[in-house]
Amino acid sequence: MEEQALLYEGKAKRIYATGNESVVRVQYKDSATANNGEKKAEVVGKGRLNNEITSLLFLKLRKVGIQSHFIEKISASEQLVKRVSIIPLEVVVRNFAAGSFSKRLGVEEGKKLSKSIVEFYLKDDSLGDPLITDEHVDVLDLASADEVAELKAAALKINDILSGFFTEIGVTLIDFKLEFGKDADGNILLADEISPDTCRLWDIETQQKLDKDVFRRDLGNLTDAYETILTRLGGQLHV
Amino acid sequence: MEEQALLYEGKAKRIYATGNESVVRVQYKDSATANNGEKKAEVVGKGRLNNEITSLLFLKLRKVGIQSHFIEKISASEQLVKRVSIIPLEVVVRNFAAGSFSKRLGVEEGKKLSKSIVEFYLKDDSLGDPLITDEHVDVLDLASADEVAELKAAALKINDILSGFFTEIGVTLIDFKLEFGKDADGNILLADEISPDTCRLWDIETQQKLDKDVFRRDLGNLTDAYETILTRLGGQLHV
Ligand SMILES: Nc1ncnc2c1ncn2[C@@H]1O[C@H](COP(=O)(O)OP(=O)(O)O)[C@@H](O)[C@H]1O
Ligand SMILES: Nc1ncnc2c1ncn2[C@@H]1O[C@H](COP(=O)(O)OP(=O)(O)O)[C@@H](O)[C@H]1O
Ligand SMILES: [Mg+2]
Ligand SMILES: [Mg+2]
Repeated sequence: MEEQALLYEGKAKRIYATGNESVVRVQYKDSATANNGEKKAEVVGKGRLNNEITSLLFLKLRKVGIQSHFIEKISASEQLVKRVSIIPLEVVVRNFAAGSFSKRLGVEEGKKLSKSIVEFYLKDDSLGDPLITDEHVDVLDLASADEVAELKAAALKINDILSGFFTEIGVTLIDFKLEFGKDADGNILLADEISPDTCRLWDIETQQKLDKDVFRRDLGNLTDAYETILTRLGGQLHV
Repeated sequence: MEEQALLYEGKAKRIYATGNESVVRVQYKDSATANNGEKKAEVVGKGRLNNEITSLLFLKLRKVGIQSHFIEKISASEQLVKRVSIIPLEVVVRNFAAGSFSKRLGVEEGKKLSKSIVEFYLKDDSLGDPLITDEHVDVLDLASADEVAELKAAALKINDILSGFFTEIGVTLIDFKLEFGKDADGNILLADEISPDTCRLWDIETQQKLDKDVFRRDLGNLTDAYETILTRLGGQLHV
């Protein structure tokens, strides 16, 4: 195989060019980071687990009509995806108070919100991904009003579907982060990943955390938690 | 005069009861604070200046049809106002980037925004008055959707009027903070103060700061700046 150009190396993934201009290869890394990169560790097996879980969830979403950038998983830690131009917004959906929401607003972790909400964060590590309002999206020229409406509607719909999937496997979807991008034709596509790195997932019975908070807060073995999610979702553990 | 009960002592003002249940007396203090109370100083004359400027601006607003809690100035540092139940939102209008907007979002101070925006901050000193979105206002049950729309419309209208007043006296209204409250009949009224403590005001020609940033950033004499605003607005200096 020819050497393929590394287009971008992020905190959790590497993006490589492919022979096809409109397709990129995503390689999931074994690094765990938290607090905007302040806390870091190598967690062997995490890349493989997130690749499996993300692939599985994008496939499940496709079956219920949600298109994404996902094309196919091509190895234990890699997948091919449609190349998009990422909209620099982290689109967060919250069903229960947790994390920064709880801390910033003084709401107890685990409190069910009276309705699910969508938040936008400016995707900019140098600024620490600040929360922004719809009016900031407008004056910073990050997306049009129509696009904001489309992103919010898509996020809430995906929330409903994912909440269903996770409830089926005894897991509460507390909150999660999505990224969207535009393809060559200007269509908005769900992109990036959906994994325990980007979702808060609590066991419905025990409230046990099965997501990156295990790493952020030193609550135990991270890969055990991610393996629980993968196997409950019906995925294969490659040991 | 009978001793009147102190109902609340804030960072910049004291609120006293009066003989009338629906009226309170506001006494402007000589304290200056910044950074949520971290930086503090006594600035002799500041209370008097803010009382004069606020009274003058509420009167000017009344003349163009904007009702507020303001009843009358009763001494150099005191005014009577209608008692309201304050909506715990700091309603901020921004015309130009400055302060926390510039810092959080990486936009140069003084850049004109493509349109004026309204932001809400949760009025809670213990949380550091965090920025919140409309959806936070909803799930935290701080105001109804109709009230949010009313607050935004009122804030933008007041912005247009104040921008006019300040332009007339050679000052740019960069941004400002309002508070609103509900009276006994449930009507939303403009309340609190409008002063160089709560506005960013830059000289149109020299860009000199004529507001609390002089204190926040140690740029010179605070009362000189506030006196400039007062006299330009046509107010009397009581020396
Ligand atoms: N389909 C795609 N096309 C192009 N870039 C993408 C696509 N999906 C995700 N990305 C971007 O690739 C990067 C993924 O690597 P990651 O380690 O998550 O980066 P980061 O540290 O910036 O979050 C992110 O910047 C993400 O926005
Ligand atoms: N008309 C009013 N009725 C009741 N309370 C008011 C009215 N106008 C302003 N207030 C409140 O009175 C307090 C004014 O004091 P201030 O020193 O500004 O307090 P803070 O430090 O809380 O900002 C504020 O909490 C403000 O919300
Ligand atoms: Mg990422
Ligand atoms: Mg105040």
